[in-house]
Amino acid sequence: MSVTVNADRLLARHETMAQHGATALGGVNRPALSAPETRARKALIDWARVRGFACSIDPIGNIFVRRPGIQVEALPVRTGSHLDSQMPGGNYDGVYGVLAAFEVLETLEDNGISTLVPVELVVWNNEEGCRFSPTTMGSAVHAGALPLDQALKVSDPAGVTVKDALAASLQELGDLPRAELGTSSKAYIEAHIEQGPLLECQGLSVGVVTGIQGTAQFLIEVTGEEAHAGTTPRERRKDALRDAIRLVEALDTAVQTDDNLVRFTVGKLDVWPNVVNTIPARVAFTVDLRHPSVDVFKRLVARVGNVCASSTIACRQALLSSPVSFDPAVVAIVEESCAIAGLSTTRLPSGATHDAKYMAELCPTGMIFIPCRDGISHNEREHAEPRHMVDGANILLASIMRLAGKAPDSCASKQTD
Amino acid sequence: MSVTVNADRLLARHETMAQHGATALGGVNRPALSAPETRARKALIDWARVRGFACSIDPIGNIFVRRPGIQVEALPVRTGSHLDSQMPGGNYDGVYGVLAAFEVLETLEDNGISTLVPVELVVWNNEEGCRFSPTTMGSAVHAGALPLDQALKVSDPAGVTVKDALAASLQELGDLPRAELGTSSKAYIEAHIEQGPLLECQGLSVGVVTGIQGTAQFLIEVTGEEAHAGTTPRERRKDALRDAIRLVEALDTAVQTDDNLVRFTVGKLDVWPNVVNTIPARVAFTVDLRHPSVDVFKRLVARVGNVCASSTIACRQALLSSPVSFDPAVVAIVEESCAIAGLSTTRLPSGATHDAKYMAELCPTGMIFIPCRDGISHNEREHAEPRHMVDGANILLASIMRLAGKAPDSCASKQTD
Repeated sequence: MSVTVNADRLLARHETMAQHGATALGGVNRPALSAPETRARKALIDWARVRGFACSIDPIGNIFVRRPGIQVEALPVRTGSHLDSQMPGGNYDGVYGVLAAFEVLETLEDNGISTLVPVELVVWNNEEGCRFSPTTMGSAVHAGALPLDQALKVSDPAGVTVKDALAASLQELGDLPRAELGTSSKAYIEAHIEQGPLLECQGLSVGVVTGIQGTAQFLIEVTGEEAHAGTTPRERRKDALRDAIRLVEALDTAVQTDDNLVRFTVGKLDVWPNVVNTIPARVAFTVDLRHPSVDVFKRLVARVGNVCASSTIACRQALLSSPVSFDPAVVAIVEESCAIAGLSTTRLPSGATHDAKYMAELCPTGMIFIPCRDGISHNEREHAEPRHMVDGANILLASIMRLAGKAPDSCASKQTD
Repeated sequence: MSVTVNADRLLARHETMAQHGATALGGVNRPALSAPETRARKALIDWARVRGFACSIDPIGNIFVRRPGIQVEALPVRTGSHLDSQMPGGNYDGVYGVLAAFEVLETLEDNGISTLVPVELVVWNNEEGCRFSPTTMGSAVHAGALPLDQALKVSDPAGVTVKDALAASLQELGDLPRAELGTSSKAYIEAHIEQGPLLECQGLSVGVVTGIQGTAQFLIEVTGEEAHAGTTPRERRKDALRDAIRLVEALDTAVQTDDNLVRFTVGKLDVWPNVVNTIPARVAFTVDLRHPSVDVFKRLVARVGNVCASSTIACRQALLSSPVSFDPAVVAIVEESCAIAGLSTTRLPSGATHDAKYMAELCPTGMIFIPCRDGISHNEREHAEPRHMVDGANILLASIMRLAGKAPDSCASKQTD
């Protein structure tokens, strides 16, 4: 019989956390470094202190909660996610990965299991990026992909900087030892809701995440000529909306692949002058294009450029984030842990980005997904089933025990199955 | 040799009028009942008084300038247009028809031509409808299509009502005799720039307007389901923008006719939540559909309803203005006047609406179009060539002389060609 997490405690902690920033519709409004997010961080630190885990915080506000290993100075295995939410968001995005990680630490403690290397929970700051842009700010700064100074200067719409919001949050959290940026880990593994429908659709308990899709975003602008809707014959029209519609159709066709893995979305479209009886002079729209394979992704990005090659079309690449493949050994460990636990699973790439993207640049990284209802996320209706939350936490526990190494004399040495 | 207008005077008056509300880009900003529009009205009244023409104003602010006929009590032949502009607009839309009409009155006077019935210039109030909605307010109220009380209560965006703006304008205009609403005319004829490209394209001097197209406007809303752009596979998407694009294409196809007279425009389109990485949940767009034939128009309107018959589509008709056919006798008079003057012409429907639409309900009505550069209107770049302005005024003069009846002893009796 393998060690398993305390399901009741995990779910109870989840209920408690959901009170910080709770909304009337059952979600949370807990943007990064807001008062409710600071209260959520404080709650976690208090729980950690009760268990005797050391807490620290780095200059961009990422919090670390460490359970020591036998090799005290060894690089830790890290696990975690984020406590901030969309405005409003759901009760599972981010917080689930933090609480599953904390439950792993507590379960190890409860069972007197010594790991060879330390296990460290990370609460990444500002993953959502909805109050302070960009998204995954904390992990990006920690990994050196975004300069600290630049991140601290970012303002929210009210003009409050990350620097000031962080200082105010630290005030509430009390004295915390300072951690360094860019510290190495032996491995990183993050549990998260899928934020998509695939696991639920296939009736699976857990997803073995193989990497993070590449994402390219484009701003495309089509120019026509404003004219009177009533007086301008068809052949004289330079209708920017008509042209934009054809362009969207052409782009959609151009980026299709046989693997059904491409994600092509026109999410934002604006028309000028946007008046009922005037032929549109200008249309701007966005393309969000994703694919998990580096080669295919590159090819698709090039195709967008080709389709937009016209004197009346301007196409600007606003974001290019190449696909990330997780470490095969970590992916295998997650998959094997599922097999040992008898949980149904599949390999899948992550459609959304996560802090694991930046950790993958620093150390062997992987992720564990659990299903969420109807694939809905970034929404107060976000929901995950308790049994999936528990299953995911158990897979996280098993994977971390393998990554962190079990000491020979550990109380849990009986776990050999 | 027929009587002709005084070209220099017409163009000079035009220059003068262009100063009221002149914009830096060479257009005018002269919304209904604004200070500059009141100054323009005052200028016209002053010119009329110099010539001894009687002026009056009706309760909705339409101004009448009358040159008496031999039959003093006979119904007048009316002609005119409007002095208000878009915000900003051009120097020709409306004001040309007013000044051409005034030039007709002056030319009759200069040449001592007595008409059997009076000839009356009308300056319609608030044709544009951009400050106070709806468009063609003055003629609609005069013709009884819009209740006076309702029109007077309309507010501009600053909260000023038509009633108050009209009172302020009247204060500036000084004492004016009051005219009745709904007075009859023997005929109505209006000169206007085409506001479309057809005459210019075909190198024609004057257009014989056969009527006003029917216009139907629809508000169409497509409902989908908001979802994450990165995680939702193609077959799971309920992408409202994708569906809206297909619907626009289907509507465009459904309303095409062989006559090339249909005008189908999607001018306004809004997306929710309109975010780069979210599949749109809702798209609302407008359809502006026009055709000059009553039967075809009806059929096209029905087709829009049919194409939109779906549980995820809501289609609301926001405007339905049936096609108006002008009086065949008036149309023939305009056409014959062109032939006599040796001016190239064609029959065409008006793409835009005009005050003539409401006058057509009261009396035999027609319109005369002159070309405008590139078909551009409702724009500071609006431009008409002086020679076309003069040609149009001459056709207006000749048509009015035929409609109003020439007295046997008139000085212009020599005009028999």
